[in-house]
Amino acid sequence: MNHSRRDFLHKFALSSLALPILPSFATEHTRWLRTQPQGPVLRVALLGLGGYAKRVADAMNACQRAKITGLISGTPSKLQTWGELYHVAEKNRYTYADIDDLKNNPDIDAVYVLTPNALHHEHVIRAAKAGKHVICEKPMAVGVREGKEMVAACASAGVKLLIGYRMRFEPNTLDVVRRRMEGTLGPINFFQGQCGFKIGDPNQWRLDKQLAGGGALMDIGIYAINGARYMVGEDPIWVTAQETKTDFNKFKDGVDETIQFQLGFPSGAVASCLSTYAMNFLDRFYLNGEKGFAELWPATGYGPIKGKTNTGTLTFPHIAHQTIQMDEMARILLDGAVPTLAVDGQVGLQDLQIIEAIYQACQTGRRQDIDFS
Amino acid sequence: MNHSRRDFLHKFALSSLALPILPSFATEHTRWLRTQPQGPVLRVALLGLGGYAKRVADAMNACQRAKITGLISGTPSKLQTWGELYHVAEKNRYTYADIDDLKNNPDIDAVYVLTPNALHHEHVIRAAKAGKHVICEKPMAVGVREGKEMVAACASAGVKLLIGYRMRFEPNTLDVVRRRMEGTLGPINFFQGQCGFKIGDPNQWRLDKQLAGGGALMDIGIYAINGARYMVGEDPIWVTAQETKTDFNKFKDGVDETIQFQLGFPSGAVASCLSTYAMNFLDRFYLNGEKGFAELWPATGYGPIKGKTNTGTLTFPHIAHQTIQMDEMARILLDGAVPTLAVDGQVGLQDLQIIEAIYQACQTGRRQDIDFS
Repeated sequence: MNHSRRDFLHKFALSSLALPILPSFATEHTRWLRTQPQGPVLRVALLGLGGYAKRVADAMNACQRAKITGLISGTPSKLQTWGELYHVAEKNRYTYADIDDLKNNPDIDAVYVLTPNALHHEHVIRAAKAGKHVICEKPMAVGVREGKEMVAACASAGVKLLIGYRMRFEPNTLDVVRRRMEGTLGPINFFQGQCGFKIGDPNQWRLDKQLAGGGALMDIGIYAINGARYMVGEDPIWVTAQETKTDFNKFKDGVDETIQFQLGFPSGAVASCLSTYAMNFLDRFYLNGEKGFAELWPATGYGPIKGKTNTGTLTFPHIAHQTIQMDEMARILLDGAVPTLAVDGQVGLQDLQIIEAIYQACQTGRRQDIDFS
Repeated sequence: MNHSRRDFLHKFALSSLALPILPSFATEHTRWLRTQPQGPVLRVALLGLGGYAKRVADAMNACQRAKITGLISGTPSKLQTWGELYHVAEKNRYTYADIDDLKNNPDIDAVYVLTPNALHHEHVIRAAKAGKHVICEKPMAVGVREGKEMVAACASAGVKLLIGYRMRFEPNTLDVVRRRMEGTLGPINFFQGQCGFKIGDPNQWRLDKQLAGGGALMDIGIYAINGARYMVGEDPIWVTAQETKTDFNKFKDGVDETIQFQLGFPSGAVASCLSTYAMNFLDRFYLNGEKGFAELWPATGYGPIKGKTNTGTLTFPHIAHQTIQMDEMARILLDGAVPTLAVDGQVGLQDLQIIEAIYQACQTGRRQDIDFS
């Protein structure tokens, strides 16, 4: 290692460790939470009642610090069945047309936006203007311009914006991050992130450019992008990328099937990533350092996440990711807690900036610098 | 999967299986060899008595079908100590100046060229002209032009040329290849090959462009190239590549430290590979198919190789790779056996053609088609 790299890493390690962090990492924290006098409960309205919203709603049953107090959907029958199932008062059920009325509802602290990607922009901005904190599912938007407008809207409304990066609270993941921060792995030189699955129904919104804003990269490849950042502990400065399409019927223009991309970091570390809607068995992170390694496999599925390092296996018990996420987000939004790994709008926006550079690199066939301005 | 891909894979599977192959895979074969009446022994002269030659020589102690009967070195003292250690008659010890005299020596069937990469060209051609079969360590040469001349020289001398691709005889590796050929993994869509280590002594020949012909890619990255071909079961048609250098003192001009490269195959499968002289813990193959996966980790070290698939772990007993290799090469050279995975000069030449395309892709920053002509 040359000196400039060593100096960089030294400075980086210090600045990372100097951040105020949660009292401990997620598992310990969750145990701790359960034995502490409880703080106030975050009262959440779910906006967009699809499959993932159901998963969030069910996981929130186990939360100590968050509960569902509102529902927002374009489908009146869903408002009724979900309302009964999750005990949400009729007065707290809204159609999209009535989002703005949230400002008069004291039962709701935050809105969790769970609609298809292209709708996040409108829904986040309207929720913010109604004076509610916003949690937005990833990707936060379908483009950098939209993402910036969302960050600005939340700032000017004086509300917080968080992105649903559930892995940033996952105990095995955080344990690897801790090892990297503490230097156990030595300076990091390589990260590999493979994220994908074979997508089913060709008519779902995830394969519709208008609603999804792209293909696998927007939906599942983003885990490798976001993962590269928290695993390596730096933000990438360049990207190269190669797109492959084998099924032109299922994956239409603008909907990516498989993209390989490579990231370069200021320290000289590199990352090799795969994003795909056409392959199973691929859900793996591998972090390599001068003194050790860590693997997560599966790395980003709904769990259990399994991990191992050069010194053994990781054995954190599985807790539904969305349960931990919502308890932690309650602490961020209500107590002002600063999480180990940030989940704010800026983090979401930077992922969009990297995504745009990846799409650009696919098109030009050339290395692209990443513009975080 | 679209139809054209399915048709391709179907045809491919048939053509692969139609090849005549060894009676079984390497472990079974080795067991079988030990219980059969032995065929003639391949009498081998080792040319170039460095560290790897020592490993080959020691492994050959356990061979049934190959033995050392000659030694060729530029260092007289080595000829004496090695000659005594391996019981090689004084008349069968040669300096480089006397290689051509091998033609008059009936005690030697084949020459195993183990000199630094840039010397392979001269040594292989001289051994072939002396009428001996040639085994040449990989990479077979430092460039495509040299490789072609070596293939041509062996053909015109009527001798066989084999390349020291020891992994092509390794039992866990061959078991994965068998699964791919039999269709257990389904059509292959992705291969990952990470090959590297942190190289020590900055003054060794492997870091000298004149002798090595390059850096990590020539020495260790070639395992990922060669592995991609036998794991996927196709030859790549395009490559993209990105070079990173963190230590400009150790890795001088023309000596690559770290290269990421990506390969595209006719079926639409893709590969993601890493070649490095700057990282430890990286020696992993991962093969992904529509129906299953296989991992080898370590994948190419001297063993034991460890493997697992979606259905369990691979448990082949470890035998020194060079022992199996030399027994199998005896059968190829003396009995005309056709191995499951070819190890002839053409395979070596194709790796050089891919290497040149990778270096070109690093320089141009653009995708390069691979020229196998």
